[in-house]
Amino acid sequence: MHPGQAHAIHGNGEQDRRFGCECGIVAIHGHPRAAELSYYGLFALQHRGQESAGVATANGASLSVRRGMGLVADALKPSDLAALPGEDAVGHTRYSTTGSSTLANAQPLYARLRQGEVAIAHNGNLVNAAELRARCEAAGSIFQGETDTEVIPHLMARAETDDLTEAFFRALSQVHGAFALALLAPDRILLARDPNGIRPLSLGQAGDALLAASETCALDAMGGRFLRDVAPGEVVELRGGRVETVASLPAGRPALCLFEYIYLARPDSDLHGRNVHLARKAMGRRLWQEAPVAADVVVGVPDSGISAAVGFAEESGIPYEMGLVKNRYVARTFIQPAQALREAGVSVKLNAVGRVLSGRRVVLVDDSIVRGTTSRRLVTLLREAGATAVHLRISAPPFKHPCYYGIDIPTAGELLAARRTVAEMAAEVGADSLAFLSEAGARSAAADAAAADGFCTACFTGQYPVAPQPAERALR
Amino acid sequence: MHPGQAHAIHGNGEQDRRFGCECGIVAIHGHPRAAELSYYGLFALQHRGQESAGVATANGASLSVRRGMGLVADALKPSDLAALPGEDAVGHTRYSTTGSSTLANAQPLYARLRQGEVAIAHNGNLVNAAELRARCEAAGSIFQGETDTEVIPHLMARAETDDLTEAFFRALSQVHGAFALALLAPDRILLARDPNGIRPLSLGQAGDALLAASETCALDAMGGRFLRDVAPGEVVELRGGRVETVASLPAGRPALCLFEYIYLARPDSDLHGRNVHLARKAMGRRLWQEAPVAADVVVGVPDSGISAAVGFAEESGIPYEMGLVKNRYVARTFIQPAQALREAGVSVKLNAVGRVLSGRRVVLVDDSIVRGTTSRRLVTLLREAGATAVHLRISAPPFKHPCYYGIDIPTAGELLAARRTVAEMAAEVGADSLAFLSEAGARSAAADAAAADGFCTACFTGQYPVAPQPAERALR
Amino acid sequence: MHPGQAHAIHGNGEQDRRFGCECGIVAIHGHPRAAELSYYGLFALQHRGQESAGVATANGASLSVRRGMGLVADALKPSDLAALPGEDAVGHTRYSTTGSSTLANAQPLYARLRQGEVAIAHNGNLVNAAELRARCEAAGSIFQGETDTEVIPHLMARAETDDLTEAFFRALSQVHGAFALALLAPDRILLARDPNGIRPLSLGQAGDALLAASETCALDAMGGRFLRDVAPGEVVELRGGRVETVASLPAGRPALCLFEYIYLARPDSDLHGRNVHLARKAMGRRLWQEAPVAADVVVGVPDSGISAAVGFAEESGIPYEMGLVKNRYVARTFIQPAQALREAGVSVKLNAVGRVLSGRRVVLVDDSIVRGTTSRRLVTLLREAGATAVHLRISAPPFKHPCYYGIDIPTAGELLAARRTVAEMAAEVGADSLAFLSEAGARSAAADAAAADGFCTACFTGQYPVAPQPAERALR
Amino acid sequence: MHPGQAHAIHGNGEQDRRFGCECGIVAIHGHPRAAELSYYGLFALQHRGQESAGVATANGASLSVRRGMGLVADALKPSDLAALPGEDAVGHTRYSTTGSSTLANAQPLYARLRQGEVAIAHNGNLVNAAELRARCEAAGSIFQGETDTEVIPHLMARAETDDLTEAFFRALSQVHGAFALALLAPDRILLARDPNGIRPLSLGQAGDALLAASETCALDAMGGRFLRDVAPGEVVELRGGRVETVASLPAGRPALCLFEYIYLARPDSDLHGRNVHLARKAMGRRLWQEAPVAADVVVGVPDSGISAAVGFAEESGIPYEMGLVKNRYVARTFIQPAQALREAGVSVKLNAVGRVLSGRRVVLVDDSIVRGTTSRRLVTLLREAGATAVHLRISAPPFKHPCYYGIDIPTAGELLAARRTVAEMAAEVGADSLAFLSEAGARSAAADAAAADGFCTACFTGQYPVAPQPAERALR
Repeated sequence: MHPGQAHAIHGNGEQDRRFGCECGIVAIHGHPRAAELSYYGLFALQHRGQESAGVATANGASLSVRRGMGLVADALKPSDLAALPGEDAVGHTRYSTTGSSTLANAQPLYARLRQGEVAIAHNGNLVNAAELRARCEAAGSIFQGETDTEVIPHLMARAETDDLTEAFFRALSQVHGAFALALLAPDRILLARDPNGIRPLSLGQAGDALLAASETCALDAMGGRFLRDVAPGEVVELRGGRVETVASLPAGRPALCLFEYIYLARPDSDLHGRNVHLARKAMGRRLWQEAPVAADVVVGVPDSGISAAVGFAEESGIPYEMGLVKNRYVARTFIQPAQALREAGVSVKLNAVGRVLSGRRVVLVDDSIVRGTTSRRLVTLLREAGATAVHLRISAPPFKHPCYYGIDIPTAGELLAARRTVAEMAAEVGADSLAFLSEAGARSAAADAAAADGFCTACFTGQYPVAPQPAERALR
Repeated sequence: MHPGQAHAIHGNGEQDRRFGCECGIVAIHGHPRAAELSYYGLFALQHRGQESAGVATANGASLSVRRGMGLVADALKPSDLAALPGEDAVGHTRYSTTGSSTLANAQPLYARLRQGEVAIAHNGNLVNAAELRARCEAAGSIFQGETDTEVIPHLMARAETDDLTEAFFRALSQVHGAFALALLAPDRILLARDPNGIRPLSLGQAGDALLAASETCALDAMGGRFLRDVAPGEVVELRGGRVETVASLPAGRPALCLFEYIYLARPDSDLHGRNVHLARKAMGRRLWQEAPVAADVVVGVPDSGISAAVGFAEESGIPYEMGLVKNRYVARTFIQPAQALREAGVSVKLNAVGRVLSGRRVVLVDDSIVRGTTSRRLVTLLREAGATAVHLRISAPPFKHPCYYGIDIPTAGELLAARRTVAEMAAEVGADSLAFLSEAGARSAAADAAAADGFCTACFTGQYPVAPQPAERALR
Repeated sequence: MHPGQAHAIHGNGEQDRRFGCECGIVAIHGHPRAAELSYYGLFALQHRGQESAGVATANGASLSVRRGMGLVADALKPSDLAALPGEDAVGHTRYSTTGSSTLANAQPLYARLRQGEVAIAHNGNLVNAAELRARCEAAGSIFQGETDTEVIPHLMARAETDDLTEAFFRALSQVHGAFALALLAPDRILLARDPNGIRPLSLGQAGDALLAASETCALDAMGGRFLRDVAPGEVVELRGGRVETVASLPAGRPALCLFEYIYLARPDSDLHGRNVHLARKAMGRRLWQEAPVAADVVVGVPDSGISAAVGFAEESGIPYEMGLVKNRYVARTFIQPAQALREAGVSVKLNAVGRVLSGRRVVLVDDSIVRGTTSRRLVTLLREAGATAVHLRISAPPFKHPCYYGIDIPTAGELLAARRTVAEMAAEVGADSLAFLSEAGARSAAADAAAADGFCTACFTGQYPVAPQPAERALR
Repeated sequence: MHPGQAHAIHGNGEQDRRFGCECGIVAIHGHPRAAELSYYGLFALQHRGQESAGVATANGASLSVRRGMGLVADALKPSDLAALPGEDAVGHTRYSTTGSSTLANAQPLYARLRQGEVAIAHNGNLVNAAELRARCEAAGSIFQGETDTEVIPHLMARAETDDLTEAFFRALSQVHGAFALALLAPDRILLARDPNGIRPLSLGQAGDALLAASETCALDAMGGRFLRDVAPGEVVELRGGRVETVASLPAGRPALCLFEYIYLARPDSDLHGRNVHLARKAMGRRLWQEAPVAADVVVGVPDSGISAAVGFAEESGIPYEMGLVKNRYVARTFIQPAQALREAGVSVKLNAVGRVLSGRRVVLVDDSIVRGTTSRRLVTLLREAGATAVHLRISAPPFKHPCYYGIDIPTAGELLAARRTVAEMAAEVGADSLAFLSEAGARSAAADAAAADGFCTACFTGQYPVAPQPAERALR
């Protein structure tokens, strides 16, 4: 879900996360400590959203919901977990955007419908939400918030059926875009993925309990084992201890977000059977094959560039070194250095290790260039620590297009790659050389040949698997 | 400084830091934004203490002090920095111990003496503080708190001189133990290290400003460059833009804490000219030489075990892999999993990567075994992820003795190595084999041959460079 | 409005307010500092509700809303007022009930309708809200909260007209019960009172600005002067600087709540032209006429019993004295004394003045007996301070029936007068004599003969001007 | 105690308290719930200080202390009371001054001395504290805070005796000024009043427990009965369940602060056997005798002017009416109206009742004129409500001199009476006539003839019972 407009809060080299993935979700069916378990599942998905977190539980008869702002550990307290009885749960952690970062937009979204109480957790973004909303409002519906997700309960309330699963299916048949959804009702959990499977969603099991999560690392954290991925377009019901496919949306072409492998997902997660760390290493190996360079040492930008840097080092034979050290204590409440101090070299997040870099030709491996500001700062940092050359290698293709499916990428006007050639970019960031991994290379690193076409790479190519509506386009 | 008694809050595998180093200090002389700069310096030393943080500044005429509980970003707010005028500053970040973790014990310690206002920041621990305090109290002094540091201003207040530097020197001549000190007065900063140089303290320069810090990474963070270390026993005055050695305490044998290299210091710091990351890599290399083993993959325990694991891999030729992934969002307010969930496999901080470990013989490199609980849990985690063998290698000698100089090591009764042979320990943690680095090996990795004797290794050997007082011994 | 169920939180003699009046409202049209002015207006109505407070403003084009929990001074901060631009405002302060005392139920209630944005403030209670809500939900409406008020925007959204005033009138034509309403839209304010005029609402003027408030004391506080009362059933529009009656609901019999005079309203307010303090004095005078007694001193229970006590003293010639002193600092966060301390005589709110009471026969004047607990405690307190006799006089008739129009009176099972004769009550509270003012006496004190029939006295008589629905009855 | 400098935060007619009395104290000996009891005692003394509150308890072996900022209910939480074991307690509530209103200055003041642990609560102000402090500091003492009270523990620490009571007596023999003191030690409580008895202190009993408090209303609140006042210069020990006079300071002339009767104390307290409400009524009666005037109604300024107004009405035969109504919800966090709103008639704290005042000649009775601003505003308010004449009567003499004994009176430059004649003051506040009670009249209302000389009236006459030091004078 997105709150009406996208925002870019990064690019200054001091932020923890450069891109926002709007949300991670978990679901638990049939566990005596469902609320607690969802807390640990959400904690494992914390990298997918730091704005707010929430959990809803069902005890067979009614729902309870708790939501709060901030990280999971801030949003949910022991008293919250204690106020969430029942053996079924859905949880949600949300990406922070400015402006609409309010409790009103936190999920799970709760509503009482003619079909009963529901709580909905959504990862992704619907491209025809504005149009559907206008239609409901004209007919007398009152919306609470600004999120695209809210059209789903309104479409369900207006479906002329008292059957919850049927109402859910009818609502999903009207929405377009990216969605991994978990809907909690007093007696069941419904899961669904959009027909293209843009956002991931996996099923697991822990003892007698059934689990679902955006990434497999959350299944691990909940003490579970992986069962299978929810298929694109599949609607799954968890009820009475059993998993059942209850409906299928009309099929689209498979288009799992490739950027999940490059940046968003945790290295210990497997997506569609492929481990993310190993995919990143493979991207690093391929990057060396596509753009070799003579150097003395390979350095990765912590944390997301490390795996690719190790792959690059292994393939090239150039030694990998810890040339950049990250301060692990960066917090939201941290005071950013004033411009004058920044210019005087005050640095907060990353420090270069002079005794590793001094007098060496360095390959710096990172996963992206957004505005170029961060990259320029890193190159400068390495040079000041004594590097005699800095060759920048990016383990992904250049970003040129906005994402309409739930990732918060700056507008084209801000994206350096949308305005500059690679040579111009190298000059702008001050690198001795610069190369990006090819789109084909990235795809082939994330899957074997048979599956390598099944990705959404719209942010690199502009080829969108689901056409965004004019209203959505206008927001970017 | 220590607050009267030592505590061990670690060993459960979920804590960020296993040992407490009691404190990091910074000093700035002659910078127009001294308070802000000290904030960034302290932030770089955050790993040395997370209980409280404080900054004092001097504007030539008077002092201002602000202290708060928690991490630097929580303890000091923009309004605090705004309330700290002046071009000189000292800052302090303190290690969290239970019980005495109160604002009253936070530093810098402020006092008005007959020699004028002072603010004192102390890293280390004095072994004769209890005796000195009893003497002062019998003569009518009233102490505010429980820390050993407080004897210093009381000894100064009772020195029959109005000269501040002289009073400081007279006080230091009476205290024994470990200290790196920064004292702020309205017109100068005084720095000192104990005669054995147990705790580190380095001088730096940023433009016209003079800097000092417990570790060089803080000099980097403040935009400065390293000048030199303060020598053991040296008393330095920063005044009028100049550095001057104003006194020397009687020399002791050089005894820099070796554990700073093994665990405490940041990898990007240089201590006595030796980079910590490179020292750890050398420990890993040496560990392979001392205790080789046939295996398929080397895995380090994040974060402090990574450098040694990379060294072990390089020396052995066995590939290094990211087999354990750490959740970066562990926070103080996090709710620990209940015992039942823990036993059911719910994990919070570390996750094992099955696709890297499955079917492999693993060398697991860590920097210490304390109670054995954490190590056992890690070995189990790797086996459950499919490792066919787990060989544990520790890049330091076994801990057997308490530290009286400011590191919070559990009591001998709790230290596994004080009660068990290496073979028994291997069995207890469930490893296929276990080896520790030798004490000589650790020393030689941290320094060249000429300097390899100049370390305090009392926690491994029981040979203390300064005899602890009976009262101090009783506390352990 | 009421949040689904009524609660009684009083009767222990330590609470500030014994009965809850559910809400006070203000409206301002055409003032350059509308948000600030509404803050002071709400502050003057603080006695009508301490649970939450909120203000909405309109700047001609759109609305802004801020709500918070607690007293006005806690709920609204300078930053809130600064975030409320525009020259029109409505404000609301809400009575605290347990359970549903949440921000979600705070008002003004905001909604975007097909007729545009609205913010609604409501004092009173609708008796057919449950039925109307069920009807809307069956047709696909989703309600946010639990309050009766929310049916109004839903009925408006479903009215098949784009005219806001028309939609408001159509909605009001469907609701039954008690309401004083202020609706803010970008270009106008709409005010309305139910056909019986159960809850008060007055119009005022301050310079060029038009004002409305539940009580005239709020007009005074906003620097305004009284214009006239909104008539029962009248719908008023404030727009373009003018007051206009735009519609009238079918007339009912006049039935202003008599309890407003007895307890709820502030003594400096005038209701339907009658000053509340003077009405209470007249009740005291009449009480002496109906139930005289030989005594030495008249004492009133602070604060609401003081006016009647002064009237009683004047009419009887017995001197009035300050025999009970109230601690002005009772706060929400106060820790109530444990039972053992209470029994040992620890008292918090009221203290008896021994030198005024000792050896005297005392007439104690209060405005009500609810459960009897408080009265018994007060009688005991006076006797312990030396009173030789305590004659209790109540300046209102006995409470025997629940209120369905927005006042939080305990259930009949808890009301002492519903179960006991006056003589039994005197024995239960330990008074030497007890008398209540007659219902006719109370009415005649609040109005001249012509208007003395125009009151709702259902809580005393059980004669309800608007029949409560079965669902509402079940809640009591 | 005072924190180094005095501040005036009043005079704008919107503040609750016009003068600051620096502190109220309580002590409890031998009660199983000593901490809770002291909480209720402090709550009854809340009017004497709203800045901070604290309680210390002793369990026979050691002390526990908790202090917090703000009102008692904010400063002390259930967890604080639970952390205060033991049967002996002292408590303190402190007056709010700007600047030094910090937790560091909150009391009870805790110190570990050679005679053991002590916690000290002080009401009053020492006039030679600065001199004594300088002497201690020159000899090597380090002071923590800025308060005058802190010299007492330092003088005790330097007394060459291990006997606590002896050390306390020696310290008191050196200090001059006003003090009511309660000192808690592990095995006893010591109480003392200065030789002139400027500040009050009374003893009481509740069951087997012994009590002490600044005012008798606190004894009542704790469920106790009054025993006797501590005599001027008396040092009392509460130990082993018994009260004993253990020492006497050299006698001075009796000089109980007359302003306690006029304004500071609660109306339900008795000071030196005289009830405060009755003293105020007597002042009102005497005021009529000294300055009669033809009028229709007498109105008192709530709350402190009410008793005198009632006395004035009784003596004159002019009826007393509730012409001013006070909003009971004024809170610290309240936003003061902007100047423009104030001028437009927005009022917050007091409202005039038009139907009581309109067309009447009014006598307005208040207890003081400070800067004149408040009085002018009140006179205007009455005239705007329709009063045809306003005669202002003040139930105390004019303030012309600063207080050095613990009351926060504005500087002479700000005191209207120090610069103007009565006629000029009448003109400045806009009253038709103005009169003050004579000093002799005030004294005679507070005591019978025999005791009427035993008051400190220095703020009216400039005759100080204890000469202030030059340093103290300089502060005013």
